[in-house]
Amino acid sequence: MSILPEAPASYKKLLRRAREMALAASAASALTWDQETYMPAQALAFRAEQLAWLTGHAHRLFIARQVGQWIAECEQHGFPAAAAEFGNLREWRRQYDRATKVPTRLVEKLERVRAHSREAWRQARQQSNFALFKPHLDKVLALTRQMADCWGYKDSPYDALVEGYEPGATAAQLRQLFSELRPAIASVLAPAMAKSAAVPRDLLKGHYPVRAQQDFNRNVAEAIGFDFHAGRIDTTTHPFCSTLGTGDCRLTTRYSEAEFVQSFYGILHEAGHGLYEQGLVQEDFGTPNGSAVSLAIHESQSRLWENHVGRGPAFWEHWHPVACEHFPGLHKFSPAEITAAVNRVAPSFIRVEADQVTYDLHIILRFEIEVNLVEGTLKTADVPAYWNEQFEKMFGLKVAKDSEGCLQDIHWSIGLIGYFPTYTLGNLNAAQLMRRAAAENQALAGELARGEYKPLLSWLREKIHRQGSRYAPRELIRLATGEPTGIRDHVDYLSAKFVG
Amino acid sequence: MSILPEAPASYKKLLRRAREMALAASAASALTWDQETYMPAQALAFRAEQLAWLTGHAHRLFIARQVGQWIAECEQHGFPAAAAEFGNLREWRRQYDRATKVPTRLVEKLERVRAHSREAWRQARQQSNFALFKPHLDKVLALTRQMADCWGYKDSPYDALVEGYEPGATAAQLRQLFSELRPAIASVLAPAMAKSAAVPRDLLKGHYPVRAQQDFNRNVAEAIGFDFHAGRIDTTTHPFCSTLGTGDCRLTTRYSEAEFVQSFYGILHEAGHGLYEQGLVQEDFGTPNGSAVSLAIHESQSRLWENHVGRGPAFWEHWHPVACEHFPGLHKFSPAEITAAVNRVAPSFIRVEADQVTYDLHIILRFEIEVNLVEGTLKTADVPAYWNEQFEKMFGLKVAKDSEGCLQDIHWSIGLIGYFPTYTLGNLNAAQLMRRAAAENQALAGELARGEYKPLLSWLREKIHRQGSRYAPRELIRLATGEPTGIRDHVDYLSAKFVG
Repeated sequence: MSILPEAPASYKKLLRRAREMALAASAASALTWDQETYMPAQALAFRAEQLAWLTGHAHRLFIARQVGQWIAECEQHGFPAAAAEFGNLREWRRQYDRATKVPTRLVEKLERVRAHSREAWRQARQQSNFALFKPHLDKVLALTRQMADCWGYKDSPYDALVEGYEPGATAAQLRQLFSELRPAIASVLAPAMAKSAAVPRDLLKGHYPVRAQQDFNRNVAEAIGFDFHAGRIDTTTHPFCSTLGTGDCRLTTRYSEAEFVQSFYGILHEAGHGLYEQGLVQEDFGTPNGSAVSLAIHESQSRLWENHVGRGPAFWEHWHPVACEHFPGLHKFSPAEITAAVNRVAPSFIRVEADQVTYDLHIILRFEIEVNLVEGTLKTADVPAYWNEQFEKMFGLKVAKDSEGCLQDIHWSIGLIGYFPTYTLGNLNAAQLMRRAAAENQALAGELARGEYKPLLSWLREKIHRQGSRYAPRELIRLATGEPTGIRDHVDYLSAKFVG
Repeated sequence: MSILPEAPASYKKLLRRAREMALAASAASALTWDQETYMPAQALAFRAEQLAWLTGHAHRLFIARQVGQWIAECEQHGFPAAAAEFGNLREWRRQYDRATKVPTRLVEKLERVRAHSREAWRQARQQSNFALFKPHLDKVLALTRQMADCWGYKDSPYDALVEGYEPGATAAQLRQLFSELRPAIASVLAPAMAKSAAVPRDLLKGHYPVRAQQDFNRNVAEAIGFDFHAGRIDTTTHPFCSTLGTGDCRLTTRYSEAEFVQSFYGILHEAGHGLYEQGLVQEDFGTPNGSAVSLAIHESQSRLWENHVGRGPAFWEHWHPVACEHFPGLHKFSPAEITAAVNRVAPSFIRVEADQVTYDLHIILRFEIEVNLVEGTLKTADVPAYWNEQFEKMFGLKVAKDSEGCLQDIHWSIGLIGYFPTYTLGNLNAAQLMRRAAAENQALAGELARGEYKPLLSWLREKIHRQGSRYAPRELIRLATGEPTGIRDHVDYLSAKFVG
């Protein structure tokens, strides 16, 4: 990375410290990845200790008094706003002020509890038994609330949590945004469902061997630009993307042999995250400038590739012949039929399999529940009943088992409370980015139709990926799309696509 | 773990420190396992940094001055020789005195170099191109020599290295032992080869799908007692067994679909190591009492299960029906034919596939080469020619490519110089243990014939596994078998089995 020649010595000290923290934090990421993918069951207790130690160590390295002095010295020095150092310092300051409010013991404790809770959730989901998970959720929630109290907040403890995922966002803002979005979705939903009524629900059901799915997924992930020399795909209960170091981005998905859609769009989604991670400036790894700036920006990348590209008008036109090689059963469907099937709009139980119109309703439900949990107006014991009741109101469907209800997502089990709204913010950002990308490049639709993904990826590399955390997320979106995050482009896109 | 009530506070401090070191060291083991199994290629440089940091950190934690004070305080306190604390202290003292002689920078440097060298070796072996590996071997050797100089030695720098794997062993002792063993093997080899001449070389060649091999291997590993809730099997270039924490023992092997013997005996061997690791007292993990005492003891376990059990007289009698389920092609062979095939004695190129008679010759060759390298009488550039010349003298075979010669083993690439002799010491120990086990339990042969492995495992658990590092390795073997390690039982066993 380039450093201004006049940068003070303390700046170099911060870079060195950031590097050491990154070594510890990324080792923890590697152990977590292993826990999700390959670790044998009896290893859990010790793995939890390893993770607590590594995470606590990284925290201790950061909150040391001299780190605060180095940051203050750099601030006094004053870098021009255009300098790379400026972005690093803005984030270091924000993160340092947050980190120093939390005792390392609490960080270690949460990490330990997360490791056990993750496993309990997996079993609870498998058996659709909320009681197995509840004591762990109680612990995670209590510790997360303690963290929020440490960080401090004005209006809601939820604000302190969401700040960790989306700097600057608050419960009040999100409530306001969602109150605009919900009726807008409702106005699209009814006509979109009517249009989809002609598409049979299980049109694409058949037999899709896992191996064939893996090959096809890899094929498409490679085509959109994911670099398998610097990444790989494994199998997990809940799909994710995790970076274990420079040149090491791991995607995961899950398979059902009765259909290929879940694993395929799962991988397109995670590969979208992966492209962002692989597009960060690798030599800045471990510093804010080499790190993703926020989860709403991250989700804009995953949802853009999954939906705007992968569920786009010409996608299956291009990929149909290749898909038929892997799945001979697809010969009997036209590209248009497959496109209609993967865009079928209908309320359903599982968020990660939801259509684009109802998707944000899943998020709004989770947002309400987690705000209530954190603010203490909902008890964990009441989550299943509350979920099912609200779900029926919003989706018109009765939840028959918690594995298809409040146990479907991993997030709360690992303390990711305040995270869900970033999925919807990501949808909004994705729509804005695609509008702007198309406006700047009239050839874009044609390129995507021909499976030429490089121009779009290059544009995202320049506007988003290479920027790292140089700008705050809102500023980054404003710079890239000309506007702050709002619902208009997303709603326009949904209307045009699903109502026409 | 139980601690004597009168143990001084410094003993508890040592336990806490050992625990933290174990967290760092085991995280490094996990990252190394990942490097061998799943890590994408571009992750290498950063992974090397992670490993250097973790290993250096564990070293720094150990060599801290207060650790020396705690050990000295405990020594002054004086524990009875029968107490668990006594064994821990003996090992802590030995390891502390060694560790404090080496600067952490050197430990970190070697770890970094190892990670790169391991990868270079893999490629060099694949392409059978020693030139790709040589510069890495030079670096590893230079650093290893530096370590030896730090540790100090009386006669040979090799002594300082072998001490890290087999406390108490020296080059002179090993040379003496091998000079007795070599002619003894020679006297068995000729008649054994003559007896094997009737067994066709590729008798068992056929088509053995990887999946079927994996299933069968797992089946047998489970039967001898390997616990898959606390372990797993993956695929690597060079088979190994590695413990990543309590309840987490990872075995690996490699597959050829033309035969099943290599992967199967590879797994029996590694599962033998795994049984030792899983049999250590798990709550003592990270302390000497919860750690394997030496590699010659470790190898006694792997070679015992691989050869004395797995190539034993009744093994295929018992496993033939199960093997035929996985490999229908085996129906055409009788158990006696399979037994003869897997015990065929003939000089061959690859150590890990060698028969039991020639095996130790492979070790003697490597021992001579590594002693010469470390003592400076052989240059790395001359290794291939020297290997091939000596190999022809010892085995009567011309090495056609280095991948079947000096590039076949991973050890030197990762700095394991002084390690090979422990394989032969392991063979000697295994023969002594089996003789003693049979003497103490007249029913043993019958149990093994019926596939009842528990009595043998229980005996090994008691005599070896649960002892951890409580006794020095020579003492442990003397206690378990009544005699120090020597060649007699092994040579008697080979004669009886292969000459009859």
